[in-house]
Amino acid sequence: MEKSSLTSWVDCAARLVAVAAGREAADLVIRDGAWVNVHTREVLQNHDLAIAEGRFAYCGPDAAHCIGDETQVIKAEGRYMIPGLCDGHMHIESGMLTPAEFAAAVIPHGTTTMFTDPHEIANVLGLRGVRLMHDEALLQPISIFTQMPSCAPSAPGLETTGYEIGPDDVAEAMTWPGIIGLGEMMNFPGVVNGSQQMLAEIAATQKAGKTVGGHYASPDLGPDFHAYAAGGPADDHEGTCEADAIARVRQGMRSMMRLGSAWYDVESQITAVTEKGLDPRGFILCTDDCHSGTLVGEGHMNRVVRHAIACGCDPVVALQMATLNTATHFGLERELGSISPGRRADVILTSDLVSLPIEHVIARGVTVAHAGQIAVDCPHLDWPVDARETVKLGRMLKATDFEIKAPPGADSVTAKVIGVVENQAPTKALIRKIPIEQGLLKPSGAVCQIALVERHRGTGSVVNGLVEGFGYQGRMAMASTVAHDSHHMIVVGTNREDMALAANRLGEVGGGITVFKDGVELALVELPIAGLMSDAPAAQVAAKADRMVAAMAECGCTLNNAYMQHSLLALVVIPELRISDLGLVDVTKFEITDLFEETG
Amino acid sequence: MEKSSLTSWVDCAARLVAVAAGREAADLVIRDGAWVNVHTREVLQNHDLAIAEGRFAYCGPDAAHCIGDETQVIKAEGRYMIPGLCDGHMHIESGMLTPAEFAAAVIPHGTTTMFTDPHEIANVLGLRGVRLMHDEALLQPISIFTQMPSCAPSAPGLETTGYEIGPDDVAEAMTWPGIIGLGEMMNFPGVVNGSQQMLAEIAATQKAGKTVGGHYASPDLGPDFHAYAAGGPADDHEGTCEADAIARVRQGMRSMMRLGSAWYDVESQITAVTEKGLDPRGFILCTDDCHSGTLVGEGHMNRVVRHAIACGCDPVVALQMATLNTATHFGLERELGSISPGRRADVILTSDLVSLPIEHVIARGVTVAHAGQIAVDCPHLDWPVDARETVKLGRMLKATDFEIKAPPGADSVTAKVIGVVENQAPTKALIRKIPIEQGLLKPSGAVCQIALVERHRGTGSVVNGLVEGFGYQGRMAMASTVAHDSHHMIVVGTNREDMALAANRLGEVGGGITVFKDGVELALVELPIAGLMSDAPAAQVAAKADRMVAAMAECGCTLNNAYMQHSLLALVVIPELRISDLGLVDVTKFEITDLFEETG
Repeated sequence: MEKSSLTSWVDCAARLVAVAAGREAADLVIRDGAWVNVHTREVLQNHDLAIAEGRFAYCGPDAAHCIGDETQVIKAEGRYMIPGLCDGHMHIESGMLTPAEFAAAVIPHGTTTMFTDPHEIANVLGLRGVRLMHDEALLQPISIFTQMPSCAPSAPGLETTGYEIGPDDVAEAMTWPGIIGLGEMMNFPGVVNGSQQMLAEIAATQKAGKTVGGHYASPDLGPDFHAYAAGGPADDHEGTCEADAIARVRQGMRSMMRLGSAWYDVESQITAVTEKGLDPRGFILCTDDCHSGTLVGEGHMNRVVRHAIACGCDPVVALQMATLNTATHFGLERELGSISPGRRADVILTSDLVSLPIEHVIARGVTVAHAGQIAVDCPHLDWPVDARETVKLGRMLKATDFEIKAPPGADSVTAKVIGVVENQAPTKALIRKIPIEQGLLKPSGAVCQIALVERHRGTGSVVNGLVEGFGYQGRMAMASTVAHDSHHMIVVGTNREDMALAANRLGEVGGGITVFKDGVELALVELPIAGLMSDAPAAQVAAKADRMVAAMAECGCTLNNAYMQHSLLALVVIPELRISDLGLVDVTKFEITDLFEETG
Repeated sequence: MEKSSLTSWVDCAARLVAVAAGREAADLVIRDGAWVNVHTREVLQNHDLAIAEGRFAYCGPDAAHCIGDETQVIKAEGRYMIPGLCDGHMHIESGMLTPAEFAAAVIPHGTTTMFTDPHEIANVLGLRGVRLMHDEALLQPISIFTQMPSCAPSAPGLETTGYEIGPDDVAEAMTWPGIIGLGEMMNFPGVVNGSQQMLAEIAATQKAGKTVGGHYASPDLGPDFHAYAAGGPADDHEGTCEADAIARVRQGMRSMMRLGSAWYDVESQITAVTEKGLDPRGFILCTDDCHSGTLVGEGHMNRVVRHAIACGCDPVVALQMATLNTATHFGLERELGSISPGRRADVILTSDLVSLPIEHVIARGVTVAHAGQIAVDCPHLDWPVDARETVKLGRMLKATDFEIKAPPGADSVTAKVIGVVENQAPTKALIRKIPIEQGLLKPSGAVCQIALVERHRGTGSVVNGLVEGFGYQGRMAMASTVAHDSHHMIVVGTNREDMALAANRLGEVGGGITVFKDGVELALVELPIAGLMSDAPAAQVAAKADRMVAAMAECGCTLNNAYMQHSLLALVVIPELRISDLGLVDVTKFEITDLFEETG
């Protein structure tokens, strides 16, 4: 692993002092901009910035004394100079992109720092996968800090992940150079109930002096919520309403408000600041999850900041929530997140603080994007074979693997069916009468089959079930190795031959998403890295994802953004009914349950 | 050294969680108070706090579920519950008290955290003296963090201190449990000029992840100021006007605004917040230096907060400046500085947020003061002999040691005279014609003698000079081993016999302050520890100091607070004319200078 070169403040302090004092020339000077000062919450017209060694050396009214023959000079011409934007919590895998390609996609949008939790790859490749993500992150021309995943599996006993994460893994990761803290502690019932393992992971993080990410996904703000706060998580991005945001900040946690591709939690919470007038320092903006299409078509943290401003937030306060507040939270206030001496020279030139056009992006003193175009390389890690060959089916699957045998002698069965709800993560536990043909269930109409295909250890195991709500018609199947959180393979289909074709296809290409109709592949998104990520650029991945969505529609799916529903059908921590490699899971009771309700 | 017992959050998280969840009983519950929430900047009526293991476990609307048979319950009865107050920068030695007695004096005023720079003892006893202060600090029932002194000597080449501090000392101190950072980097010209030693001390601190204290004592906000900021200091308490405060915060430094016994820098700077409306998070309140009389008669951080409020600051914002802002600055936000789960349970009950009566003080979950009376022991270190026997004169001094010989054959001389200015630290470099009698200078009228008596190594060296402005009349002498910053002994007098008596008296008692008149001692403040501190309670020390001031007046001194002038006469970093063990110092040129201007 080769690290992106950045001299520490300590190691270049003498040079920074000499530049600021005028004894040495800066590498770069930006002249005559409006300095957006996130410390004082001011906009200071006609200011200059001098940069050396990738860090700010001088931020003041006149940097003429810092300019030498070799100094590059950029004329801001009165434009605003804002700090590079920070994403306080996110998952790179959600973009189906590698860290390098994710970086390449977001740099033109002004993101220069991300705090990323590689939770998905941890489920597939364990600590080694986290390390690979961490290592590629450190190669980038922007700052990507890794939050060590805390909860793999998400639901111990209800699923089998590729690898598990425990307190020893957390302690080891805390020694890596790019680890900033613990990723979202999703097992909030564990914390509330004093789980030794969860508290040990938190303890390992706190002992390392790092930040514990939270995830309290419950509307209950009573004693359980307070117990979770007492356990140590320092932030939370699961709030969805104003009361959630306020409650978290009152407890000394940071309220992270997210606008992702499918998360819309800023507008409902930012009123804590814009209307209730609370001190904004405890509020942070983040994306959590962004699809590549969002990155290509809409933006990244610039989209979130714009949205916060559109929700009535003062632009400089909104920028604080995406720069200084974030940096302070992670103990990085003297390293980045503001335009001040010694900090990483991450700065955006923009001509409007409300519409926030990202005209020129400088990271560590280097122009990384200009007019929406990336201007720098984002180096790829040489991903090893074992990270590329993670879809282990053990054998070729056959249509018979997807047969659901009826109880002997039955004419029909009453079965549990996973009910997909449009635009929602929770499912419904439905009961449907299913006809039987030649001893096998033969779902029809709204109900089709779902299978969880084991893909981490090549056991050849297939767990079959039933799902309703996608609207598929005719002969089809769709398979995905993105299958939160354990990331086995989810196959949904109306036809067992097509289900086998789809599953085998993903085994062949090393993972991804495929849609078959009448025995023919309509769309394929190859995700060869861990079965989760492409190593192609975002635009290519987004185009393939668009084709996949179109193929779903061609198969009759009428839901908005239904791939999300597909990939979440194995998420055995969100009610009501899910499927895992261990069986059908009743997530209202956190137990494995029978497919058949009764037979007749 | 025995540390005050305090369980880390990590080590008691399971208990805190269990208390918050209602599974275990709290040690202490405070009921029905108005929670002053410094995170959100709110006052929340009718709230409860549950405390266990010295930390907050639950902060919310109803802690009934945390109360068991053994739980102590305090009824707040609607009073405000504010976080214990933090002093962001101060010197314990300024109170002439040990850390234990300083703590005992300030606890009833609600101070529960101090960031203290034992700069004075570092000049006398070096790293060992810092360690002793650090160790006694850690014994206390409140939190006293030590800032490792950075500049001993203050003026290399112009004075000889007992010990010197260098980068290796700083690096070593950074490994001690109670060290929070580097003490004020007073050598700002050194930083601006790229002094390797000063940058190495800063680097050792930054590498340890700790906070570098600043001290930029110049009104020049040009390139030198920016170069200082680029060098790494993270705060500064030397600002005296609004522009100073704003300039520091814009550079990403904290503006520490001080109200000490003789510092009045809050009113002139807090307008940056109260009138200019800047984000208050970058502003911190501190005392820097408080005499024991101030602690006994006026208060400590409560006095500063009240004053800030009287200057127009919103009470909760003023409290943030003395709690959360301070904690965040030192990387302790999750450890103290707010009433939130996991933090040290430092809380004050007060019935008014403006006059701020300190009615009940709890530190680490224990009542430490009630109705102005301390309720807890503040353990003393067993100070070793070498820290108590630091006044080494090497011999008994005689009146002849204070003779100033005139140039051979002269009838009078024109000499440089240190001119004391009331209420100001700077002196004037005066020129006065001095009569000669029997070959010796015989000052009279406003001019009297001053001597710097070497006391660290027993060299027996005495440097003599002249001073004007105290107003002494008749036969008298005053001596002090508090003699910033090198802390030799300063003797001022109108009579050489009395000067010898005074000097020998301090040698006899191991240091302090004495006033002689007509050969009789009028007042004595014994400061046996390092010649700087008493180990008696503040009230006793304050009473003796009052007697000393009265004795100065009996000798004719008409200046306000003239002991400060006396003790600063060797401060060879502040213009214009000073005295050191190496001679008379011209502090406008930073060089040793002759006493005689010309002879005639």
